[in-house]
Amino acid sequence: MKLKVKTINFETGNTKDVVLNIKDAQKLGQKAGDRIYIKNLESKNIEEKYWIAILQVDYSNSLVEPGEIGIFLDIIKEKTALQNDMILSVKPADPPDSFKFIQKKIKGNKLTTEEINSIISDTVSGSLSRIDLAAFITAVYINGMDNEEMTSLTYAEARSGEIFNFGPDVYDKHSTGGVPGNKVSLIIVPIVAAAGLTIPKSSTRAITSPSGTADSMEVLAPVSFEAEKLKDIVSKENACIIWGGALNTSPADNILIEIERPLRMDPMGLMIPSIITKKLSLGVKKLVLDIPVGDGTKFITPDNGKQFAYIFKEIAKNVGIQAECALTLAHQPIGHAIGPGLEAKEALTLLMDYSVGPNSLIEKATDLAGILLEMGGKAQKGMGQNLAKEILRSGKAFEKMKKIIRVQGGNPEIKPEDIILGPHVKEFFAAKSGHITGVNNAIINQIAKATGCPHSKKSGVEIFKKQGARIKEGDLIFKVYSESQNKLKKAEKIYNSTGGPIILGGMMIERI
Amino acid sequence: MKLKVKTINFETGNTKDVVLNIKDAQKLGQKAGDRIYIKNLESKNIEEKYWIAILQVDYSNSLVEPGEIGIFLDIIKEKTALQNDMILSVKPADPPDSFKFIQKKIKGNKLTTEEINSIISDTVSGSLSRIDLAAFITAVYINGMDNEEMTSLTYAEARSGEIFNFGPDVYDKHSTGGVPGNKVSLIIVPIVAAAGLTIPKSSTRAITSPSGTADSMEVLAPVSFEAEKLKDIVSKENACIIWGGALNTSPADNILIEIERPLRMDPMGLMIPSIITKKLSLGVKKLVLDIPVGDGTKFITPDNGKQFAYIFKEIAKNVGIQAECALTLAHQPIGHAIGPGLEAKEALTLLMDYSVGPNSLIEKATDLAGILLEMGGKAQKGMGQNLAKEILRSGKAFEKMKKIIRVQGGNPEIKPEDIILGPHVKEFFAAKSGHITGVNNAIINQIAKATGCPHSKKSGVEIFKKQGARIKEGDLIFKVYSESQNKLKKAEKIYNSTGGPIILGGMMIERI
Repeated sequence: MKLKVKTINFETGNTKDVVLNIKDAQKLGQKAGDRIYIKNLESKNIEEKYWIAILQVDYSNSLVEPGEIGIFLDIIKEKTALQNDMILSVKPADPPDSFKFIQKKIKGNKLTTEEINSIISDTVSGSLSRIDLAAFITAVYINGMDNEEMTSLTYAEARSGEIFNFGPDVYDKHSTGGVPGNKVSLIIVPIVAAAGLTIPKSSTRAITSPSGTADSMEVLAPVSFEAEKLKDIVSKENACIIWGGALNTSPADNILIEIERPLRMDPMGLMIPSIITKKLSLGVKKLVLDIPVGDGTKFITPDNGKQFAYIFKEIAKNVGIQAECALTLAHQPIGHAIGPGLEAKEALTLLMDYSVGPNSLIEKATDLAGILLEMGGKAQKGMGQNLAKEILRSGKAFEKMKKIIRVQGGNPEIKPEDIILGPHVKEFFAAKSGHITGVNNAIINQIAKATGCPHSKKSGVEIFKKQGARIKEGDLIFKVYSESQNKLKKAEKIYNSTGGPIILGGMMIERI
Repeated sequence: MKLKVKTINFETGNTKDVVLNIKDAQKLGQKAGDRIYIKNLESKNIEEKYWIAILQVDYSNSLVEPGEIGIFLDIIKEKTALQNDMILSVKPADPPDSFKFIQKKIKGNKLTTEEINSIISDTVSGSLSRIDLAAFITAVYINGMDNEEMTSLTYAEARSGEIFNFGPDVYDKHSTGGVPGNKVSLIIVPIVAAAGLTIPKSSTRAITSPSGTADSMEVLAPVSFEAEKLKDIVSKENACIIWGGALNTSPADNILIEIERPLRMDPMGLMIPSIITKKLSLGVKKLVLDIPVGDGTKFITPDNGKQFAYIFKEIAKNVGIQAECALTLAHQPIGHAIGPGLEAKEALTLLMDYSVGPNSLIEKATDLAGILLEMGGKAQKGMGQNLAKEILRSGKAFEKMKKIIRVQGGNPEIKPEDIILGPHVKEFFAAKSGHITGVNNAIINQIAKATGCPHSKKSGVEIFKKQGARIKEGDLIFKVYSESQNKLKKAEKIYNSTGGPIILGGMMIERI
């Protein structure tokens, strides 16, 4: 069937859809979601001459009339020779081979390396539709992937994008997430870099949490860089703290994540390759993985976390990365601050003056940094944390952080008091005296997001008393910041309706 | 967030998507595929005031600018008060409860009736996205559904649409498909109706085969009717042979099928409810199910078919339908004709004159019709087929078919020779003599579809010799019809490259 191109001034951002009028779709015997094979008779470029697209159907004649094929901006940008009124030849296409491999996984069978390569390459090319990938993710969730499959997937995802080479010994730190206020990377990276190790830290923005490392770092310096600029930054300071989203590393993994997220599925068979492939893309050779364990994290019990850690180490090893894993406490926030601006401020304050703490942040950051220092031969086994604390206490980490901020284009002389918060603020005081038996992370996250985090950098929460502390009636225990009076009110409402995140118990004293 | 409506003159036909500019999506903290809760402050109608939509993101500013919300025609048609420049209030929405029930099935757990009702109602309302449903279908494929779940699903799907009442005793016939040339319904319906039973036969068009019952019947009379006209037809002739697509029966099932089809998944847990729910919607009380067994069908071995039959009967019984199942041969076409026009012609010829056969069509049609006659008390057990043959031979079935054609708006005086085929025709002759040991259905289907079936009613194939026949070199064995010279050439090419569908073997004689 010959059809005339009609460009549609709309970018869907995630598909290779083309649109046919219902009459032509029927003539072709195809329905929405089917694949069609397109041939551009006028093109000389082989990549633009043939391709497979996924069909959308216009039932209303509103967009394309019979005889037309609607082409979205996404395709026009890629196939620049396409123009209105060009003639394309169109016929039904069989699903790609990778579609059969997805069905093989659905049937519970193990996939070969070649089959996984095929799925990943068709994921990137767009030959597999979003519903195909949803079926694949569901099948991996139910039927799992073994170590060989995960290893193949890790390699395939990395090869789908750019791979960096920052030298023979590249270090990194990653967290599986789930604990509020976890700004440890802002402390670990300057410590490790100050010791002379290379650590190009690429992070995500917050997905479901109030702040990701990239969101917090962005308060201190720009974080969005393309490949050339990243190479320049790391060559100058052997470190960076950036957002990975502007790099073209493992695009296949990004596409899968875009479907896992609304499905709220994060199967281990995809999660482990997803973490490791990004490290492989950045040339990482030695990695410490922080595995927070407990309610609200991915690992409810230490045993869950341990089991994950063993498999993770194995897959990392298979692709040439030495990984050490640390199970960490996740029962309450790290430090006191939650939200991009507040977290940047807390980290900067600690880098400038070790004595102000907070202890939970010092301990966790130096624990993890210490492991990297030991892996890098900078400290003997068991002595890494001491060295990390020494680098932090001495101000060397702060000096390194200033250089990282400068090379990324921020103001290295930034002071904690320069980080503006609010302006709308509400303080909460203890209604009675007592002893804190627990902190509810879920309520903290809920309140922090209600204030406008992570989009609003000036919003967030501070928790002044944590588990084990004794408090007296009238003590300041919690503070909420927001850029919007409305959002502050919502956050306040959550605090009041839930009773707030701080749980009093034991030795409680009633006023008489 | 307050946004201004911008209508988009495009009907997607299958979603409740709205489009936000990437800047607004980020402010909202939402991504493509997320749900948003929309409130129309200006609307008084409760159904138009609040709804949940699924987010698409415009990365290019080409369709919606910041501050705008793009609304497709699909929603405008439903919510007629929506206009350009109206202000809508938008906020992130949690997934509906039914999303949790899908995850429950993914985790391998049994769903309650309430949970299934919730999934089905959100499928119809559009609160569940296509990728949610793809995950659900995959989970049902892998983890299955038990009889209670299938029963609940059957009821829930039927309740999602219109339910007809054609009286206390309504009969029907259905086939699980996979055998070419299976035009038996065009014979069974008039036989059963001539005996005085009510049989409102609603069929699908061909999906993957060269012709569905609705496609073939459409050569003789219109088949697309809405509810009121259907009631009128059945009240007059106690029968019909129509396309079910214009009726609003089990819309939930149609939505699931639209996703199962491109995924090429047809899990038993959904297939059985899908068949029975359509019967329930048409008020069917007694049903004969034709289960073709063998290569190319859904059931490779008789045991597969038998297992399916027992479960099918059980679910049907649970919803008040008495079902009998017949495993049937599927090793070669029924009759000689494949394609809408050819099949209508073959059926009409037989109705007019029993003596011309073909035998395979007579035997299969009267076998199945006989079961219905026995179920309806028109014949004693074991005597149904005889009665069916008698009704067919006597011309009573033909008289009834003429009335059905008339009441559906066709010409009751239509003769087989009025059914025009081609005009492009190619005959194939035996290259050598021998004995036919097999017929390849897959090649027949491939050739028939290449000629233009099912869209082109005048195209198709005729097979003159079938399994067991002796043929002599030069015998006419196969004939191909097409409306297009090009398509005829393609069909010819398939014949020549595959060697055609007729397999010679044994007692083969070489010319000396």
